[in-house]
Amino acid sequence: MTRTPQPDPDQAVRSRPPLDGFWAVVPAGGAGTRLWPLSRRRAPKFLLDLTGSGRTLLQGTLDRLAPLTGGGALVVTGEAHRDAVLDQLDGLAPDDVVAEPSARDSMAAIGLAAALLERRDPDAVMGSFAADHVITDEDAFADAVGAAHAAARDGWLVTIGIEPTHPATGFGYVRPGDELPGLAARRVVEFVEKPSADVAAGYVDRGYRWNAGMFVVRPTVLLDLLAEQDAAFAAALRAIAAEPASLAEVWPTLPRIAIDHAVAEPAAAAGRVAVVPGRFGWDDVGDFASLGELLGAGGRPGTADAETPGVVVLGDRSLVRSVGSTGLVVPAGGRTVAVVGLEDVVVVDTGDAVLVTTRARAQEVKSVVAALQEDGHDELT
Amino acid sequence: MTRTPQPDPDQAVRSRPPLDGFWAVVPAGGAGTRLWPLSRRRAPKFLLDLTGSGRTLLQGTLDRLAPLTGGGALVVTGEAHRDAVLDQLDGLAPDDVVAEPSARDSMAAIGLAAALLERRDPDAVMGSFAADHVITDEDAFADAVGAAHAAARDGWLVTIGIEPTHPATGFGYVRPGDELPGLAARRVVEFVEKPSADVAAGYVDRGYRWNAGMFVVRPTVLLDLLAEQDAAFAAALRAIAAEPASLAEVWPTLPRIAIDHAVAEPAAAAGRVAVVPGRFGWDDVGDFASLGELLGAGGRPGTADAETPGVVVLGDRSLVRSVGSTGLVVPAGGRTVAVVGLEDVVVVDTGDAVLVTTRARAQEVKSVVAALQEDGHDELT
Repeated sequence: MTRTPQPDPDQAVRSRPPLDGFWAVVPAGGAGTRLWPLSRRRAPKFLLDLTGSGRTLLQGTLDRLAPLTGGGALVVTGEAHRDAVLDQLDGLAPDDVVAEPSARDSMAAIGLAAALLERRDPDAVMGSFAADHVITDEDAFADAVGAAHAAARDGWLVTIGIEPTHPATGFGYVRPGDELPGLAARRVVEFVEKPSADVAAGYVDRGYRWNAGMFVVRPTVLLDLLAEQDAAFAAALRAIAAEPASLAEVWPTLPRIAIDHAVAEPAAAAGRVAVVPGRFGWDDVGDFASLGELLGAGGRPGTADAETPGVVVLGDRSLVRSVGSTGLVVPAGGRTVAVVGLEDVVVVDTGDAVLVTTRARAQEVKSVVAALQEDGHDELT
Repeated sequence: MTRTPQPDPDQAVRSRPPLDGFWAVVPAGGAGTRLWPLSRRRAPKFLLDLTGSGRTLLQGTLDRLAPLTGGGALVVTGEAHRDAVLDQLDGLAPDDVVAEPSARDSMAAIGLAAALLERRDPDAVMGSFAADHVITDEDAFADAVGAAHAAARDGWLVTIGIEPTHPATGFGYVRPGDELPGLAARRVVEFVEKPSADVAAGYVDRGYRWNAGMFVVRPTVLLDLLAEQDAAFAAALRAIAAEPASLAEVWPTLPRIAIDHAVAEPAAAAGRVAVVPGRFGWDDVGDFASLGELLGAGGRPGTADAETPGVVVLGDRSLVRSVGSTGLVVPAGGRTVAVVGLEDVVVVDTGDAVLVTTRARAQEVKSVVAALQEDGHDELT
């Protein structure tokens, strides 16, 4: 897809026509344990406004996709969150939200959406995008999806490879190969797991891209690729789509496997996966360190000022008092939060729990959640 | 006063007879701003249990003095706190709590108590002890008060000089001179202000003692010493005692001055102050750093353990989750407080405010309170 330059990028997105037969598939799962106590089992990450935009991550995901699809979307979520998802998404009909009876990893979730779309629209191209990621340049995102859509119509399983801004160790990578004639895409040589820092630096040097788990593909192509690896799995998904009443019975029999392992990696090995470049800001907001970075918590260490120049606030800034501190403060409990003399601190206040950590140790928050669960404090997790 | 050795120090205190004519005078004032948000204007430091003993600092002060006085005590506090003081102290009659119409510093508060006692008991010896200090060896405290009482009966203004455990810069010092024949006391050469670190080290080397603001004296001696400096002041205090109904009218005319400057320093210069050694643990619990130290927050840095070995907890320990952290946590808001990867941290959770700081920066908490007051958030201070 080529674009005429436009003066206003937002206007550019809005003025594009939707992509032919394009459907958004949005898996909305994952507890976001490392974002506790903001994220809870009953109010997971995707249901929260983590950017202060006034929209939750789920809403932001659908907002971003709506101009590209013209409105067609399937959200796949846990039964416990079905009502909350419908509440947050005015434009969706009850049939557009698929409730998983239990969590069975991404192949079952995305595969079921593919099977449903295969019946709804024989010309469908689906794009699968997690409900809890943050993307900052929507115009560049639309470019990438447009290019992926074109390649998917040609029968490719297409992933969007994010151009790395740094040698991240928290993401998997995609290794691009030959250009594909007539498409703004390359063949994928392989997907690789989260690397060590040294290995990551080498990946970035050699042009690898971050694997953001975004797949664009015709539903039939996806299910046929799955069938090559696990014919029964693909058949079971198609059987549920043909007879939705069988969901509760069939679902528990499906394998627990990620789409990456079930389809993307074997298909890449067979030379059947394409990658288009994603030149937009992307983050999976895995923990408070990345949330702080996203919100601009660069910090000016040692700044002694009562007007909170050094901490970034997610929420009501008037509740935060900061003296000589940098980091991230989330005053979500309605209380005043005062931070004095701490650098790179993370303070999250909620109605029943307060977390204090540092950006460097933010990953370890999950051990607190694990300990609370072990001790039977389910009401807090 | 000499004592027969006793096997059980607590038993020793309990089995001593009260000191003849001895009255406790307890000024209960001061906001404890550096202990915000635990300490508030409406619930200042002396009304709080800061040691986890189940008794507030005020109660602990009276508990400690009761065996020495046989029960006689006057508490001088602000009008706003009169009812709370009476609620906390079962043994006191309404007449034993003197309510200051406004804060006018320690000379007016202690001087009024002296004037009242002068009329109640011509043989009285009064001992003035702040309501918000912590003392750890009650038997040694009783020894010191006994020695001070003996010197006071001989007409001295007596202070208890605490033997320093380190060259503190946060306290004033007393310089002891010649021994006084027949008394376990020395003449005071001078009182000196809070020193720099270098100067403090010199003081400790030369046998100076901490000035804990504890004075033991006959009321008439105290008022007569005051009269030598400011006859009108002493006369006004005696006039209020003679006609308590005049309190509201006379009180606002009294000078705002500390007893140290009004009486102790000039009397020391005149060779009329004695010091007895205080060989007990003493702390004025000025901020969360000293509170943490008092509660044993030595800390084992880097201890990664979910069972909070590294943080000291004031309050319900089951509310605190600590991973690889040291410092002090006060879960006074009923919420779970999780601390991950911070050394020497101070976290204080209350119903309407959360404080996060470090032991090194704990003094700066007062700037948060000042900022809140400036912004009109009196409900939080």
